[in-house]
Amino acid sequence: MPGTRSAGARMRGAPADGHEVVLYGFHPVAEALANPRRRIRRLLLTENAAVRLRTEHPELAFEPEIVRADAISRLVEADAVHQGFYLEADPLPSLDLDDLGPDALVLALDQITDPHNVGAITRTAAAFGVDAIITTNRHSPSATGVLAKAASGGLEHVPVVSVRNLSDALIVLGKRGFRRIGLDSEGDTPLGAVPPGRPAVVVLGAEGRGLRQRTRDNCDVVARLDMPGAVKSLNVSNAAAVALYALCGPGSEPVSGDA
Amino acid sequence: MPGTRSAGARMRGAPADGHEVVLYGFHPVAEALANPRRRIRRLLLTENAAVRLRTEHPELAFEPEIVRADAISRLVEADAVHQGFYLEADPLPSLDLDDLGPDALVLALDQITDPHNVGAITRTAAAFGVDAIITTNRHSPSATGVLAKAASGGLEHVPVVSVRNLSDALIVLGKRGFRRIGLDSEGDTPLGAVPPGRPAVVVLGAEGRGLRQRTRDNCDVVARLDMPGAVKSLNVSNAAAVALYALCGPGSEPVSGDA
Repeated sequence: MPGTRSAGARMRGAPADGHEVVLYGFHPVAEALANPRRRIRRLLLTENAAVRLRTEHPELAFEPEIVRADAISRLVEADAVHQGFYLEADPLPSLDLDDLGPDALVLALDQITDPHNVGAITRTAAAFGVDAIITTNRHSPSATGVLAKAASGGLEHVPVVSVRNLSDALIVLGKRGFRRIGLDSEGDTPLGAVPPGRPAVVVLGAEGRGLRQRTRDNCDVVARLDMPGAVKSLNVSNAAAVALYALCGPGSEPVSGDA
Repeated sequence: MPGTRSAGARMRGAPADGHEVVLYGFHPVAEALANPRRRIRRLLLTENAAVRLRTEHPELAFEPEIVRADAISRLVEADAVHQGFYLEADPLPSLDLDDLGPDALVLALDQITDPHNVGAITRTAAAFGVDAIITTNRHSPSATGVLAKAASGGLEHVPVVSVRNLSDALIVLGKRGFRRIGLDSEGDTPLGAVPPGRPAVVVLGAEGRGLRQRTRDNCDVVARLDMPGAVKSLNVSNAAAVALYALCGPGSEPVSGDA
């Protein structure tokens, strides 16, 4: 169900850059084909992949070039699990901060450069119904290849707001009433003590480095996840999942049967 | 702080197999060196890595062969981020089910074969203080290489119980009073409605396939994570993190300040 979520946000303009996006694997390709905002350039499928796609998504119209699996293997990274699905497309248009609705829940990534991590965060954001992900123009990996694979179709559902300066963006959002919640192992408030609520932006830092000082200074609260075990930090996508669960998941509300 | 956690479990016997384990990257190697149960065969470090290790872990005694980074690169996978740290060691001894304490919290993996996922789950388990991970002899990746890297040192802290048949193991644990909590998108109970408590085993299935029928039949409850967004499932390590947070994290107890 692409483009139907109440993100309170509208798309605008053409893609910021002309770079081509490469998507491979069943979920990334199927979700892209189902996304009316995604402009497809080229679709390669193996015979089996075409059958699977028609079976699992009879509603989709597509005209693939049928190829052998090794033809796709030559186009992607060495160990990429492409499953016979390969698609080239335009990048999706990015949003402006102004496009975020008054009730939005967004993530902000403070220089997270690992594409696996950003992809996994994007998938998790899509699962939790996050309205947008704010990234910086620089120090952010492109929404293609391994990032898209790890996002497992999530790229089609979570718009990106690309900003020049994250702290400036947090200041703007603060003025508009967004609660700015940093997540950092050095935070002064346990995550469980941060009440759920919208609008809000959850700010995640890179593994190891954490949040930059100015990012931290522009958060209303810096929350930490107290880990009881011997390893003291979670992988950043796992930390994002726990934070979203705590702040907006079923765990954040009183349990009422099949809530 | 290796081997000091109250796992209620003791190690026994020699490694089940003679396979050599390869660990690379700062955290996996540093945690292995700090683990008295880990028998080291060979340690290669770059000059810079040796300095970093002595600086960040002055308590560790080690005698590396100092090598150039490309000598390590030749020993590991093509894109491996080894950071100048490379270690060969014996596998850690595995536990028996009988070794699990009466108050244990354990994870069980139902044929999760992706080493990245198993590694990420291991890291998360170590962070939440999980007492052991139950895997099957077959259909489980070895605790080496990319799995160890993703585990980020967690391998040294979470013992593995390797069983022949997962359902049989669940039956045994059930008789010993363990609550057996399956996690599956088709589960009949929302995760938030499952009360925390020990002893317990949280059973995770492979992405896509989920739990096998017999695994499911031997769980006391099969819980699902209701995702509000367009993508309906989390990556399995993210699902594990959320489940552990819900069942034993700070979110599972009433908030009381700096809990």
